[in-house]
Amino acid sequence: MQRGLNATREADFANWYQAVVREADLAETSPTRGAMIIKPWGYGIWELIQAELDRRIKATGAQNVYFPLLIPLSFFAREASHVEGFAKEMAVVTHHRLAMIDGVLQPDPEAKLEEPLVIRPTSETIIGDAFHRWVQSYRDLPLLINQWANIVRWEMRTRLFLRTSEFLWQEGHTAHATQDDAMAETTTILELYRDFAERCLAMPVIAGEKPENERFPGADATFSIEAMMQDGKALQAATSHYLGTSFAEAQNIKYQSETGDLRLCHTTSWGITTRLIGGVIMTHGDDDGLRLPPAIAPRQVVIVPILRDRPEDAEVLAYADDVAAELGALSALGQPARVLVDKRAGRSADKRWDWVRRGAPIIVELGPRDAAGGQVTSMRRDRLWGENERIASQTMPRADFAAALPAALEEIQAGLYAEAKARLDGAIRDDIKTSADLAAHFGPAAEDEDANEAFKGWVRCVWSKPTGEALEAVEQQLKSLKLTIRNAPLAQPAALGPCIFTGQPGVEEILVARAY
Amino acid sequence: MQRGLNATREADFANWYQAVVREADLAETSPTRGAMIIKPWGYGIWELIQAELDRRIKATGAQNVYFPLLIPLSFFAREASHVEGFAKEMAVVTHHRLAMIDGVLQPDPEAKLEEPLVIRPTSETIIGDAFHRWVQSYRDLPLLINQWANIVRWEMRTRLFLRTSEFLWQEGHTAHATQDDAMAETTTILELYRDFAERCLAMPVIAGEKPENERFPGADATFSIEAMMQDGKALQAATSHYLGTSFAEAQNIKYQSETGDLRLCHTTSWGITTRLIGGVIMTHGDDDGLRLPPAIAPRQVVIVPILRDRPEDAEVLAYADDVAAELGALSALGQPARVLVDKRAGRSADKRWDWVRRGAPIIVELGPRDAAGGQVTSMRRDRLWGENERIASQTMPRADFAAALPAALEEIQAGLYAEAKARLDGAIRDDIKTSADLAAHFGPAAEDEDANEAFKGWVRCVWSKPTGEALEAVEQQLKSLKLTIRNAPLAQPAALGPCIFTGQPGVEEILVARAY
Repeated sequence: MQRGLNATREADFANWYQAVVREADLAETSPTRGAMIIKPWGYGIWELIQAELDRRIKATGAQNVYFPLLIPLSFFAREASHVEGFAKEMAVVTHHRLAMIDGVLQPDPEAKLEEPLVIRPTSETIIGDAFHRWVQSYRDLPLLINQWANIVRWEMRTRLFLRTSEFLWQEGHTAHATQDDAMAETTTILELYRDFAERCLAMPVIAGEKPENERFPGADATFSIEAMMQDGKALQAATSHYLGTSFAEAQNIKYQSETGDLRLCHTTSWGITTRLIGGVIMTHGDDDGLRLPPAIAPRQVVIVPILRDRPEDAEVLAYADDVAAELGALSALGQPARVLVDKRAGRSADKRWDWVRRGAPIIVELGPRDAAGGQVTSMRRDRLWGENERIASQTMPRADFAAALPAALEEIQAGLYAEAKARLDGAIRDDIKTSADLAAHFGPAAEDEDANEAFKGWVRCVWSKPTGEALEAVEQQLKSLKLTIRNAPLAQPAALGPCIFTGQPGVEEILVARAY
Repeated sequence: MQRGLNATREADFANWYQAVVREADLAETSPTRGAMIIKPWGYGIWELIQAELDRRIKATGAQNVYFPLLIPLSFFAREASHVEGFAKEMAVVTHHRLAMIDGVLQPDPEAKLEEPLVIRPTSETIIGDAFHRWVQSYRDLPLLINQWANIVRWEMRTRLFLRTSEFLWQEGHTAHATQDDAMAETTTILELYRDFAERCLAMPVIAGEKPENERFPGADATFSIEAMMQDGKALQAATSHYLGTSFAEAQNIKYQSETGDLRLCHTTSWGITTRLIGGVIMTHGDDDGLRLPPAIAPRQVVIVPILRDRPEDAEVLAYADDVAAELGALSALGQPARVLVDKRAGRSADKRWDWVRRGAPIIVELGPRDAAGGQVTSMRRDRLWGENERIASQTMPRADFAAALPAALEEIQAGLYAEAKARLDGAIRDDIKTSADLAAHFGPAAEDEDANEAFKGWVRCVWSKPTGEALEAVEQQLKSLKLTIRNAPLAQPAALGPCIFTGQPGVEEILVARAY
């Protein structure tokens, strides 16, 4: 039986992931080490993610801006824990010209910068510097801005979408008069991300606060949404940080209060990146390739005309265009339906498989019989296989197909979410009470992070939220199992047992997992 | 009489330009030398430019992609004239880590890159490398891609929007089977840019081909659209290049033809940048600040409620919201009207002036009398001043105002274009027949490029299109007058007189001007 891929999730998940990225034509490695080329189908997904997130972010009152790519090195020396956290992985510009010297093109020694410039690994420092100028009075607050930008953080070991030296993201930065206001912003955005991930990406997540040791460098509190991939690992899908007053102190962001005194602002930052696309692949992909939630499918319906180099081809093409125009006039999931007629050269069976691999939600094949009979023959990517290992297609009158299309796309969107939600809910163990049981459940971790491991899911357990050396001990113990604390979910039980690490009274439940 | 700015175009055009950028809150200089911070109002204009251009570019069949920011240095050595053209102004990454050494944060000597990476000054080289992989057969052609990206070209002397070390742009890159196909693409895009500039930016332009000495490094032909600023200088607003087969040769981009032989592709590239915003300012701005064509105004109608810290304020605010909702439901210039109620603290007169400076096309002021009478009092930014040096406002029933709004916005859009078109048409001299007359017309150029100069407009004259040393002589002669050849307009007369430089038979008419 033909499948879309020559790789399965079960045999080798990491290999399967690469196969989907390649076969769905989403992205490829580039000659620049660690950076990727995002191809049209992958970038089309990102454009839909951007458009919807941008709409939601603006609805919170934030405005878009653009700050410089390059940040003077001295800016990173201002906030100690921030430099600590980022200094290890930044691309540094030291020259502003190349020269041909002795026949070799090289950085021109005469064009060495007095102060090196760093390619932004994130923009808190340079945006904080502007906030210092822009904020004078309590009337200027809250100050809510966002930018869509590229980011570089050097990575030794990269994986397309999930971990690349350059990635695309959105970074929000806000300044507020009080801690309460800044915390409210932090959690508003966290909820925005959660709702976006679940509704648009059909990716169920758990929102919660990161433990101290997993905070953003310099933050007072970091919140995340965590998604479960089909191999049971966690993917941090977005973060929202309450930065307290430490960046305001480093950048001197102060406001005059209503009573006239000068106070430090409380700031936040929050972001979502192109790694989301990796999360979509590992949430919804199957052994035939990608399955895209219709809300982020660049084409929701792809029509493949079955052409045979015969006179009736013209009729089939005209019929396909006609059906596409009719469907494109429909509205689905709140937007005009996105429909394509695939007129490329090639066998229609190859084109069908191409769209299966790319994850188009609905694939329509139209031949002379369909054109003559005013019918539409279609497949749903979310239920590709019928009886006898055959692809399940159905033929219906064109008008019926069009009338049912919006509901079908909504059903696919909801179905993908439900499938992932059931997997998540069914794969969180909450009966582990000791660290020995935790170790036994997860078992020893493979040395090679790409090695295939049995599906373990996550563990939700109680801890005493230790700090300092006690926290470090927990971190080390987890690290030996390649585990991390993902977050402490916002929803917590009324009563808690003892901490599984220390035996002390429990403070909160946390999620423990292997992660990307 | 109060004006929006403390600067006039006549007194000091360069100073006036800076005042508009600042007072319209479009952008500011950044701590990163040569780079700017684009503020919400400026970025909002860019977002509208992007959205409309993106729609038009996609309609030509091009698809969006994303290529790496950093390009291996060796890529620039492949195409000789290309490296020649760009090598002088590139930002070079030489290290991938910072380290604290002797208490000083600095590039870590142990993290020196084996091969330096260059921040893209344009992406022909790395995209060409991908085209080499993506193009195999004539069936893969044409290959049409576009990307929205940031670009760095080192500049010693910068001016916000017009010339900055980092800027934002769109760069299209295409590969074709034949010269004819590639030239058709080049001119299709040139026409797309012309139509976009004239319809959306209300900026009249002249499309034509650049002379040999002004071509993009490595191109066989470069076309541009040139706009006239209010000081008479030219601004190159967009370029479209036919690259011939030289990049295909350098990058080995070949296809197998229908007859089975291997042929070089013909490639093109084309782009538009954030400097367009500088062009909008210098085309439409006046001594009160910016005037925005409604098609690219982030807010087309701004409602300023007149509040007096009295109980009736609530009524005024409610009325303002109600009017805004009604107007926002209207469609103007093919899109929902963009309406804002400015609820910021502050005097309403200050807010009015703020929106005058920002160039909001229509400003509405609503007070208790308007609320009580169901009226709307409004000003049009394109005809701000009435009799007796007073701002011209008109009051009309709310329903009438709403009914007239779409036509009013269209009228403003058309009016700004007509005004600029009349200026352009009236400021091109076509009666200059010798280079002595040319020199006399323009007069000696000021040493300081920011110095105020009398309005000279452009000269349209005949030349013999010399090449080699003869062209160089013309270039030098023009350079001494700070003049350049902008382009040879696409529309040419049937008969031509002799070349004004060489006296030889004329080959085409060209535009000569001082330029940004």
